[in-house]
Amino acid sequence: MKIKAGVIGATGYAGVELVRLLLKHPNVEIAAVSSVSFEGKQLDEVYPALRKICGLECGDADEVVSACDVVFAALPHGLSQDIAYRCVNLGKKFIDLGADFRLENPEEYEKWYACEYRYPELHEKAVYGIPELFRDEIKGKSLVANPGCYPTSAALGLAPALRAGIIEPEGIVIDSKSGVTGAGRKPTQGTHFPECNEAFSAYKVAEHRHTPEIEQTLSRISGDKASVTFVPHLLPVNRGILSTMYAKLNKEITAAQVREMYREAYDGEYFVRVLPEGAGADIKNVKCSNYCDIQVYVDEHTKTLIVTSAIDNMVKGASGQAVQNMNLLFGFEETAGIDMIPLTF
Amino acid sequence: MKIKAGVIGATGYAGVELVRLLLKHPNVEIAAVSSVSFEGKQLDEVYPALRKICGLECGDADEVVSACDVVFAALPHGLSQDIAYRCVNLGKKFIDLGADFRLENPEEYEKWYACEYRYPELHEKAVYGIPELFRDEIKGKSLVANPGCYPTSAALGLAPALRAGIIEPEGIVIDSKSGVTGAGRKPTQGTHFPECNEAFSAYKVAEHRHTPEIEQTLSRISGDKASVTFVPHLLPVNRGILSTMYAKLNKEITAAQVREMYREAYDGEYFVRVLPEGAGADIKNVKCSNYCDIQVYVDEHTKTLIVTSAIDNMVKGASGQAVQNMNLLFGFEETAGIDMIPLTF
Amino acid sequence: MKIKAGVIGATGYAGVELVRLLLKHPNVEIAAVSSVSFEGKQLDEVYPALRKICGLECGDADEVVSACDVVFAALPHGLSQDIAYRCVNLGKKFIDLGADFRLENPEEYEKWYACEYRYPELHEKAVYGIPELFRDEIKGKSLVANPGCYPTSAALGLAPALRAGIIEPEGIVIDSKSGVTGAGRKPTQGTHFPECNEAFSAYKVAEHRHTPEIEQTLSRISGDKASVTFVPHLLPVNRGILSTMYAKLNKEITAAQVREMYREAYDGEYFVRVLPEGAGADIKNVKCSNYCDIQVYVDEHTKTLIVTSAIDNMVKGASGQAVQNMNLLFGFEETAGIDMIPLTF
Amino acid sequence: MKIKAGVIGATGYAGVELVRLLLKHPNVEIAAVSSVSFEGKQLDEVYPALRKICGLECGDADEVVSACDVVFAALPHGLSQDIAYRCVNLGKKFIDLGADFRLENPEEYEKWYACEYRYPELHEKAVYGIPELFRDEIKGKSLVANPGCYPTSAALGLAPALRAGIIEPEGIVIDSKSGVTGAGRKPTQGTHFPECNEAFSAYKVAEHRHTPEIEQTLSRISGDKASVTFVPHLLPVNRGILSTMYAKLNKEITAAQVREMYREAYDGEYFVRVLPEGAGADIKNVKCSNYCDIQVYVDEHTKTLIVTSAIDNMVKGASGQAVQNMNLLFGFEETAGIDMIPLTF
Repeated sequence: MKIKAGVIGATGYAGVELVRLLLKHPNVEIAAVSSVSFEGKQLDEVYPALRKICGLECGDADEVVSACDVVFAALPHGLSQDIAYRCVNLGKKFIDLGADFRLENPEEYEKWYACEYRYPELHEKAVYGIPELFRDEIKGKSLVANPGCYPTSAALGLAPALRAGIIEPEGIVIDSKSGVTGAGRKPTQGTHFPECNEAFSAYKVAEHRHTPEIEQTLSRISGDKASVTFVPHLLPVNRGILSTMYAKLNKEITAAQVREMYREAYDGEYFVRVLPEGAGADIKNVKCSNYCDIQVYVDEHTKTLIVTSAIDNMVKGASGQAVQNMNLLFGFEETAGIDMIPLTF
Repeated sequence: MKIKAGVIGATGYAGVELVRLLLKHPNVEIAAVSSVSFEGKQLDEVYPALRKICGLECGDADEVVSACDVVFAALPHGLSQDIAYRCVNLGKKFIDLGADFRLENPEEYEKWYACEYRYPELHEKAVYGIPELFRDEIKGKSLVANPGCYPTSAALGLAPALRAGIIEPEGIVIDSKSGVTGAGRKPTQGTHFPECNEAFSAYKVAEHRHTPEIEQTLSRISGDKASVTFVPHLLPVNRGILSTMYAKLNKEITAAQVREMYREAYDGEYFVRVLPEGAGADIKNVKCSNYCDIQVYVDEHTKTLIVTSAIDNMVKGASGQAVQNMNLLFGFEETAGIDMIPLTF
Repeated sequence: MKIKAGVIGATGYAGVELVRLLLKHPNVEIAAVSSVSFEGKQLDEVYPALRKICGLECGDADEVVSACDVVFAALPHGLSQDIAYRCVNLGKKFIDLGADFRLENPEEYEKWYACEYRYPELHEKAVYGIPELFRDEIKGKSLVANPGCYPTSAALGLAPALRAGIIEPEGIVIDSKSGVTGAGRKPTQGTHFPECNEAFSAYKVAEHRHTPEIEQTLSRISGDKASVTFVPHLLPVNRGILSTMYAKLNKEITAAQVREMYREAYDGEYFVRVLPEGAGADIKNVKCSNYCDIQVYVDEHTKTLIVTSAIDNMVKGASGQAVQNMNLLFGFEETAGIDMIPLTF
Repeated sequence: MKIKAGVIGATGYAGVELVRLLLKHPNVEIAAVSSVSFEGKQLDEVYPALRKICGLECGDADEVVSACDVVFAALPHGLSQDIAYRCVNLGKKFIDLGADFRLENPEEYEKWYACEYRYPELHEKAVYGIPELFRDEIKGKSLVANPGCYPTSAALGLAPALRAGIIEPEGIVIDSKSGVTGAGRKPTQGTHFPECNEAFSAYKVAEHRHTPEIEQTLSRISGDKASVTFVPHLLPVNRGILSTMYAKLNKEITAAQVREMYREAYDGEYFVRVLPEGAGADIKNVKCSNYCDIQVYVDEHTKTLIVTSAIDNMVKGASGQAVQNMNLLFGFEETAGIDMIPLTF
């Protein structure tokens, strides 16, 4: 017996990656997909890679809501709230890959997203879905705010150190680099091949919308108010995020000790790999998988903890984690449908 | 009940891709792997992408032979023959990803590979493994010559036209472009990133070792002696082969008619997708999958049939096809372990 | 004393590359540039690489015409004819980087470009500008049709063999691969980084507009009617075209003999390098230069001459050749402003 | 009248880039080049891009020393000291692109490079060659320590803020990303195309040899002891370094004010471009040029100054700056031979 799943916004990169994963999920049947841009078209017309594999026709959001037990929405911010409201009222599960339910504070949301924070009572029901950090809260919920890609890499990379209290929660520097799929499927001048290839720059420096989301999560983990300087960069590769993070150590500790602390923190976590000494986190080693690879370093000279964390922005940073959350909501094996082996090249 | 499989030469690109596929195969357990370069090391030390996934230790070839029901060899030419001999004598199945059993003619083999053609009786038992073309001959065999990457793309792309006799088998031009994994894992000047990136050139022009293999297969399909001018190029991408092929039409025919002929020829073939008019074969649409995408064109002006054929050089062009052959040898579902959905990006 | 040059369509890729070259030209002052898309903007706002180097403001085409002794137009087809007419009437030199004056036959032009062939008398004055092949005709002219990028690579690669009559002029196969700047500056789905990177496919198979231009030039060189099957491919690099060409040999000849014939044909030509045996033409070796590298091979097996020819599509394939033509028109040193050393990486 | 220049280590990436620049320098004739790996070979055999342009034969270091007025050495550390000694004794100018004369402190040199610090008196004569910061000291000297690529990007990016005293000199975070040419010409597993392409990771985290060099320069500029946490990353592009730097502000100041301070500091500097608000530093905009593009940001939230600085690692980060230093030593126009316009794509 399979549940019926649907994807709203199925023709964006996160949406179609979700479809790819759900098509192979043992407990799921995709009952409907929708797309505003490609309504009436088959998915494999938009993504020829899916020919002979997925001929689902893109309908509208209503069709998805009515046909499915769980609805995933991969939409621009502001557009998920009404759909979530209907899903929850209809007793369906809703997993939002967008930003509408990530921030707990209405003012923060309205400030950073310039959108109205409707349905405050719905936000209270929403859970922020990083299973490795908040698993128990996710189970049994109906509404999941699937985290942003950068925040996932940052939170997994910093959580053990913050929980153990070995670093200052304020003034953390997060220098992140993301593959171009993170910019979405819509062509722009900056993502036009000849301008993006052989190029590299920072963007939205200290003003990216993931900043308050990162701070909210780190504060929650830390117990104290965390503050970060967050600078994302556009990396000329298709997939992957590497975050390099710098935090002030507040005690003497060696890299080996921190590594051991991380190993214990993530003991039993299938999707987190704390790397042995000498091995660097590299986006290539997690490509097309739901893994997060983490390495830690101590710069004794400046008393700084350095953490590198690598994920596939489209899998653990988006669609893979969404499936992981779905698995928790429905009591499936947590790795079901997302235990892909990373590409070795 | 699973069969025991082993990989000799598991740390090369084809070898490790085979391991990745076999790890997820429902009817297979990997019993042993070997590597001359990394004997004594674990696979995940060589390929950190496999951490926590595959800790198999590389032993020697003998261990693989004795532990397994089916032995895959991904070795430089000349090194498979003795191993094949022992496997067959021991009643095991042997699938050679190298070139040792591909050429039926001993003189051709010795000329192109400068190796001795040992065990002629073994060669007679060997079958050339492109399932879509020679499925019935493969079933029940013990020894498979897994085809080269370029020959696979060429044979699948030209077979229907040759069988139907609409093109001249002589003077076919095959202009192929391969991703850099085709050059193997060993670093060289030509595959050093700054010299390979933003570069493009032909290599081994009209003297690549896949030439006689292509001609042998095309001749067999055609019934007449085929001759080809084959020029491979190195493409600055990781994976994929696109072959653009040009053959003289010997009758009036439209592209639509040829396409229909191809559709019929590959009707029921899971892994071949004859594309609709207006869609081009692109290596990106078959990436990390066992599919072969084919498009046909007719240049009426010069009476030329043009065929483009795209595969992932490491999957349908090597390890995926090897698993497909194994499935045939053992009577498994032909798509078992290799029905991956191509990456959409 | 410098001449005044102007560029109409200065913000496209060919236009701005022309500006880059003219800024360093010893005999030229750029008097005006224009752009429809960016009128009123400075060039360095559109291309930040030019900050502090070129603050020219984009005006309209009229300003360029009136201010300059030589007008370059890098415009979509159909838009150059009227401007050319005015320039010629005003006694100015006009160099068209677009397609309007390349085809001698009005029917061909109207068929392939769906544009009206205005001013037939103007076309008669126009000269097709590949200096290495038609130098004497270019000198003293006022109106140059600067060749297409693919036709330049093809004509230079095939001319010596055609002139010598060693190959059949009919049924030549030209398999070309171009970097993405060839597709222009305007973002499209196909040139969006994640869809173009790690991808490779043919496009406009046997129906690209450069086909009649190639045939016209080859016929003229040969003296007989030439016909070609031309297939372009999109290569995931910024710059460069490699054309791999296949022609039937009509006599016994060795590669060494053909190479010697090519060396003689291009003796004294600064920008053509006939490569020694064993060296392949590679787009990386001509990057950012006006060189054309050529290698020849003979496939004795199929009696085929294979020629590979590499150029930078934006330099010898567009703006560099335009400057070379300007140098001829004005009697400057032919290499002035375009003797850049190719990048070594 | 031209001076005679020579390059020791001419076949490495920095060496050959130097040759490319010197070949076009109006005041220089290249009298000799040397290479240990390719002695007896012509440069254009090693770099086919130079065919018909530079047929200089690689000799040995002695030949270069005796033939030239100025000797550039692009050698692994430890190998420049003896050559420098001889050059200075012979009254020749010596410019070291290696690390041997960069560190003033013998202990630091021996600790980080595990080499003996010979000729202390020679070190005292050496000048650290970033013209924009230490121009007056460079003029008239005989021995220049040409800076490392990362230190150049860091020092230019931080100098104005340090001089003005608006940031804390301790605890500065420098997160740098370099193109693969920075790793040299020798192929390695990590720079093999399929392992480097579509990959991204940090390396030598907090232990790269450029750390003490950066701290030495920043301390000197600041007047106080500076300390940095320096983390380099390998970027899958050929050329370019982007450094993203984070320093604690010790006063209230806006980004606009900092930008104005930077503009004044670099007023009149040809090769430094302080970018206007809204424009990000991007490696693509300085490619193949000697420019350094700088942008500044203030994160008011965490009282952090963020600076991004982009250079071409092989030009301003190595060979271009070496020529700039030569120009100062000989009283040539400072921009002579290095006023290339960056590539626009």
